[in-house]
Amino acid sequence: MDKKVGVILSGCGVYDGSEIHEAVATLVALENHGLEAVCLAPDIDQMHVINHLTGQPVEGEKRNVLVESARIARGNISALSADKLDDLDALIFPGGFGAAKNLSDYALSGPDMKVNNDVINAVKSVHEAGKPIAALCIAPVILAAIFKDQSPNLTLGDDGDNAKNLEQIGGKHHITRFDEVVVDEKLKLITAPCYMLDSTIRQIFKGADLVVEKLKSFLS
Amino acid sequence: MDKKVGVILSGCGVYDGSEIHEAVATLVALENHGLEAVCLAPDIDQMHVINHLTGQPVEGEKRNVLVESARIARGNISALSADKLDDLDALIFPGGFGAAKNLSDYALSGPDMKVNNDVINAVKSVHEAGKPIAALCIAPVILAAIFKDQSPNLTLGDDGDNAKNLEQIGGKHHITRFDEVVVDEKLKLITAPCYMLDSTIRQIFKGADLVVEKLKSFLS
Repeated sequence: MDKKVGVILSGCGVYDGSEIHEAVATLVALENHGLEAVCLAPDIDQMHVINHLTGQPVEGEKRNVLVESARIARGNISALSADKLDDLDALIFPGGFGAAKNLSDYALSGPDMKVNNDVINAVKSVHEAGKPIAALCIAPVILAAIFKDQSPNLTLGDDGDNAKNLEQIGGKHHITRFDEVVVDEKLKLITAPCYMLDSTIRQIFKGADLVVEKLKSFLS
Repeated sequence: MDKKVGVILSGCGVYDGSEIHEAVATLVALENHGLEAVCLAPDIDQMHVINHLTGQPVEGEKRNVLVESARIARGNISALSADKLDDLDALIFPGGFGAAKNLSDYALSGPDMKVNNDVINAVKSVHEAGKPIAALCIAPVILAAIFKDQSPNLTLGDDGDNAKNLEQIGGKHHITRFDEVVVDEKLKLITAPCYMLDSTIRQIFKGADLVVEKLKSFLS
């Protein structure tokens, strides 16, 4: 396992952080394909905390994105910062609302979204070194925003409001099923819908595996 | 998927709740074997909250086992109580310190451990209906305590202090590697070491799959 893939987490739980099934599916797919996972997350407060039993925000509670992401990584995680990036051969973003609430503000601002500066820096640094970047579920909006001047080919699954927003941001949206990925060969971007579609957990694992397989094809 | 397996969660994160990789591996293994997961957790406070980045307890913070477990279950979870049990064909306990801190007090009391009453009731109810029960990682101590009068055959992986404690509680310990499970045919108990051994995430998925395969062999 000589190739290292940065896994950018955004908390721990679908409604305010990383989608847990997608994050774990990513970690196991990386090992299955002989790649080493390097878990990273920004050291910032979450936008808010959602009670995942009721779906409602919890007033007055604060949680930190890096600290909560450490639950998925079993403590084996570092703050996302510039000095971690040179060692990486690729990046991957699992989904979950954390990508739209903590790594960016897409959940609040829609097509006028802004991306966290550490995330922009990581994506640009890895991309400018000629390395591939993958994103699952809602996380492709981050790539749409950062690469908007190059009309990146991406997917959010079906042709709903999020797909329209992605096009407004500057991406080119492609409709996909759970067992399909979209590859922008020129920009080396790989995206898959995962829980943007009404999927079972087995389908999530299939999607993550396909994404990592494509990601690996760019690493030689 | 006509057979339902109750998945008893104990929070969300290895140091104060369910081990996330084991819990997710259990959910995907159940679907892979054509079984339906029914996530359940006791509606009680966690023993404490551990910062998973530092490994240290967080003073003054409280979290609820059911609410945090809902993160792993994407909100699709119910309180563990008597009225949920008749529909189930089996039970499975993923590991993590939550099994030893929230579902029981093994982490504090060692061989003098006590098990949460809702957990005792669930295990006895399912067992007395002739149905199988599985446990991963540290969770087999719960089965040792409940079935201590019948010397249950169980595993916690290697032959360390926990194995000695399990024997003192009343179980019979069997040493296992990551790709081995222990089956008590008479009591219909299936256990595997998972992260009790120094395992990779791929090995955890292999272990959970083997456990669910054995569990399914008791469902006819």
